[in-house]
Amino acid sequence: MPTYQAPLRDFRFVMDEMLDFPSHYARLPSGDDASPDVVSAILEEGARFSRDVLLPLNQSGDREGCLLEGGEVKAPKGFKEAYQEYVEGGWPSLAAEPEHGGQGLPHSLSMVLSEMICATNLAWGMYPGLSHGAADALRHHGTDEQKATYLTKLVEGVWTGTMCLTEAHCGTDLGLIKTRAVPSGGDAYTVTGTKIFISAGEHNLAENIIHLVLAKLPDAPEGSKGISLFVVPKFLPDAEGNPGERNGVTCGSLEHKMGIHGNATCVMNFDGATGYLVGQSNKGLACMFTMMNAARLGVGIQGLGLIEASFQNSLSYARDRLQMRGLSGKQAPEKPADPIIVHPDVRRMLLTQKAFAEGGRMLVLYTAQMLDVVEHGQSGEEQERAETLLGLLTPIVKAFLTEVGFESTNEGVQIYGGHGFIQEWGMEQLVRDARITRLYEGTTGIQALDLLGRKVLMSQGEALKVFTKEIHQFCKAEADNPALKEFVEPLAKLNAEWGELTMGVGMKAMQDREEVGAASVDYLMYSGYVTLAYLFARAAKQASASLEGDDKAFYAAKLNTACFYYQRLLPRTKAHAQMIQSGAETLMATSSDDLGLGFEI
Amino acid sequence: MPTYQAPLRDFRFVMDEMLDFPSHYARLPSGDDASPDVVSAILEEGARFSRDVLLPLNQSGDREGCLLEGGEVKAPKGFKEAYQEYVEGGWPSLAAEPEHGGQGLPHSLSMVLSEMICATNLAWGMYPGLSHGAADALRHHGTDEQKATYLTKLVEGVWTGTMCLTEAHCGTDLGLIKTRAVPSGGDAYTVTGTKIFISAGEHNLAENIIHLVLAKLPDAPEGSKGISLFVVPKFLPDAEGNPGERNGVTCGSLEHKMGIHGNATCVMNFDGATGYLVGQSNKGLACMFTMMNAARLGVGIQGLGLIEASFQNSLSYARDRLQMRGLSGKQAPEKPADPIIVHPDVRRMLLTQKAFAEGGRMLVLYTAQMLDVVEHGQSGEEQERAETLLGLLTPIVKAFLTEVGFESTNEGVQIYGGHGFIQEWGMEQLVRDARITRLYEGTTGIQALDLLGRKVLMSQGEALKVFTKEIHQFCKAEADNPALKEFVEPLAKLNAEWGELTMGVGMKAMQDREEVGAASVDYLMYSGYVTLAYLFARAAKQASASLEGDDKAFYAAKLNTACFYYQRLLPRTKAHAQMIQSGAETLMATSSDDLGLGFEI
Repeated sequence: MPTYQAPLRDFRFVMDEMLDFPSHYARLPSGDDASPDVVSAILEEGARFSRDVLLPLNQSGDREGCLLEGGEVKAPKGFKEAYQEYVEGGWPSLAAEPEHGGQGLPHSLSMVLSEMICATNLAWGMYPGLSHGAADALRHHGTDEQKATYLTKLVEGVWTGTMCLTEAHCGTDLGLIKTRAVPSGGDAYTVTGTKIFISAGEHNLAENIIHLVLAKLPDAPEGSKGISLFVVPKFLPDAEGNPGERNGVTCGSLEHKMGIHGNATCVMNFDGATGYLVGQSNKGLACMFTMMNAARLGVGIQGLGLIEASFQNSLSYARDRLQMRGLSGKQAPEKPADPIIVHPDVRRMLLTQKAFAEGGRMLVLYTAQMLDVVEHGQSGEEQERAETLLGLLTPIVKAFLTEVGFESTNEGVQIYGGHGFIQEWGMEQLVRDARITRLYEGTTGIQALDLLGRKVLMSQGEALKVFTKEIHQFCKAEADNPALKEFVEPLAKLNAEWGELTMGVGMKAMQDREEVGAASVDYLMYSGYVTLAYLFARAAKQASASLEGDDKAFYAAKLNTACFYYQRLLPRTKAHAQMIQSGAETLMATSSDDLGLGFEI
Repeated sequence: MPTYQAPLRDFRFVMDEMLDFPSHYARLPSGDDASPDVVSAILEEGARFSRDVLLPLNQSGDREGCLLEGGEVKAPKGFKEAYQEYVEGGWPSLAAEPEHGGQGLPHSLSMVLSEMICATNLAWGMYPGLSHGAADALRHHGTDEQKATYLTKLVEGVWTGTMCLTEAHCGTDLGLIKTRAVPSGGDAYTVTGTKIFISAGEHNLAENIIHLVLAKLPDAPEGSKGISLFVVPKFLPDAEGNPGERNGVTCGSLEHKMGIHGNATCVMNFDGATGYLVGQSNKGLACMFTMMNAARLGVGIQGLGLIEASFQNSLSYARDRLQMRGLSGKQAPEKPADPIIVHPDVRRMLLTQKAFAEGGRMLVLYTAQMLDVVEHGQSGEEQERAETLLGLLTPIVKAFLTEVGFESTNEGVQIYGGHGFIQEWGMEQLVRDARITRLYEGTTGIQALDLLGRKVLMSQGEALKVFTKEIHQFCKAEADNPALKEFVEPLAKLNAEWGELTMGVGMKAMQDREEVGAASVDYLMYSGYVTLAYLFARAAKQASASLEGDDKAFYAAKLNTACFYYQRLLPRTKAHAQMIQSGAETLMATSSDDLGLGFEI
């Protein structure tokens, strides 16, 4: 069975040494609460909970799946008890506002916890995971009464939330939704329609489920400008705020999926369910993005957690598995064969996982700092800058970390050889679970359009410049640091090239909008690699400065991972750069009909 | 449910127009039988069989899996009947020697059929698929009596074969096997041991199963020089050659796997089973490679078949699915949204699949010609050259086509969006089935060592030169062809670079053998991309010369796919080239213990 130890040493490196979280937290209003001791205690307790409570349920949950019987959904054995322990431990309310029952700790801290949860039981993690988005939507857009009714319960985790967006004929294009909401007296609406792919749509973990539902009002304009958001509880709260009358929303069926079997992915039928408008009518899309942005960061963290899980077990297997001798001679002559970790190609795969885990962690925590500042920063200027960077980095966190997450979990299977394909070892489950992360909350293609089209080009490149300027300043400051020569020179070149490539696409896009879509995914991947290169250069700076002290081996390994990243992963930018420039023409030249001419005649 | 049409038009293009199979077949001894009409009839009947018989059993077979009850394994519903139809249709004997009941048609023809089978039902295809390797081993190394007893039945498909190599503690490193064979009087041996991962090890499709088993004799030398090959039938043939006494070999359990659920992957227990030595004692490894080389080409074709299957369905979905408007305006104003095929990024994914399907098909058929010549060529010189190319290309066919096969089936899931993750649509099954192809019959890492270490460097680069010389001559001959400018120039550069990179690794490897392993997988992928670039240049030559005739749309689409390949896939060689040169040092620098320092403290 797979094992897991939360990477506490690496968290300490990134948070305390590299990104100076102690000072960062001290500047936040909740800073006094997030003292180093408290942070440390939370991480250690999170490490215990994920390892001892969640991990043992991961494989059994995958095998068992969920059961729909008489309209009720049963999550796999042990999921409910684990959720109770999670609620009793106060985990759901960690980063929520005190006025709604939260503990007011920084968001970044709950993101660290998320990594541990995703690494040990992604399917379970999605039951509480969706509540954050629902709570965010209500906090930002709900009425005081809605907040009083739903928010505290969601924050405490007594109730869970969902995001009901997708319908059978539309996922990306929500302007096409058919679900209707008709005023039914007072502030109530009657919601009717069918939603699909609703994660945690129905289950037995919590006493009530609060659905945030996109629907159209009778007089709504066409398309995405006519979407409104409604809150539709499974049980309508009674006068005391407890679950009362059963509402007309039920689970019609469960999807049979490639992975995350332990999570109930539901078809939800709204049959004249009672709902209440959240925010303004026809402004549902904006409310949805409030939910979505948090969810997108969350999915990126899922990718990261799965990389770490796969890496840890692959490393352990590569140390144990005896097979062949080293290419340059016996390494363990006393054994019948050498452990496969002596082979350079096995190490290439392990270091790929390690670099993406450590690089992904830096990216998530760097972004998490921005989120903290956006929510609780000290000045408008500081917040504006953080918001720009957060907007720029969110699609990268989401898409880049899930793309390399899928690659890395597959390296895990590859390191296990044939055993990687066998369910018992747990490595193929990580691949199946990782596969959804490239799809939900907006596919990689959608994230790429968000990055290049919306964030970069719509700001005339200004959003990107905020980040490339920071990188430029780092490169300038470290230009004469001999320990960083192998990092700073290529980084400075890539940083300049990033701007040039952006300009190039921007110019072409003015003539032909298709150029944006033609370049977008390669642009996103390129951006991800350069972003990690910047963070690895900073890590190398920190590590090289600490090489002489205690814990030398840790810093030497960190420096080596940075070298590996620059030598063996960063060269992929060369391919992406060329593809970004290759344009739309070849993509669009063949008609839809002619694409099938090889087999249709 | 997924659909499939055999790509007959594209087969015709590659076989008849590009690689001139009619002349190639005419020069073979069996050439008279393989007339264009016969070839055409076989392909059409194969298209029908795979589409109408195999495809309908693919999803049900995946869901149902195999059942082990009372020592007997039941394949999924319909598999037995499909196999009977296959045998009655004479398919198994297509390319076998007439003296053993075969039809003596060229091997390349059965490889075309294999693509169709793998595209429609990979799990089913592995029941007959393993028989080829077993038959090859007996044909090349068996005694006349063994041939008389087993070969005809295997060729006819009345019996099936297996390859029993792997044990729990060794897959790659077969020198470690523990299965023992002890002489038991006459020419018989008693075989005892446990083999794992035995595809089609036990099933109800055929009346007998012939296991080819690696085991060690009592006096065998240590390691891989002490391996012998034995034939161990499930039922010992009686005096009439019919299945007689049950032998002591049984299926202990079935593996629970990520994919190919319809194929029985067995733990096989040999409890004092009667077996007979095949070939010389302690020379089993050579016999095994006879089986293995055929099997490796077969696995490459599995990758190809899955790409084609994924492409065809993705294309159809992309034409039907309405979602968003084109970036440059409405394309189907009469519909509520545009079909997603209008989006450049969706086309990028479709063209990636198309290019790998068409490129893979050229690679397989080019290699298949070499196999035909090796087996039935007219001169020793011609055969020697073909054998060199076959040896060079086999690891590329196996590993490159399964790597890009996994990528391409994943693009299929991506094109379907969230629906790709749902079992009903069939796209995620292709990914799960494709995942094993990167592992079995030697992982990608093993293929890469075979290519770079064994085939290229051990021949002092001579094997590679045979191929790069052919590419060089093509580039020289087409240097002034204006229609090929965009292909020939980059191809010539890459071809030269291929040689330089090889020399560079070879020089470093003389100092340090680890350099081979450090470069190998990137070298294999680089080689695959350049090989496909050569074949696409030849395709472009053919297509551009045919643009003025009938079927213009087909040739224009082919030319466009070649352009796409050069612009959007071939640039990956830039990254691989740099990684090949990055060396072993960074890979080997961190000790096995220190690699885990992020999470173990």
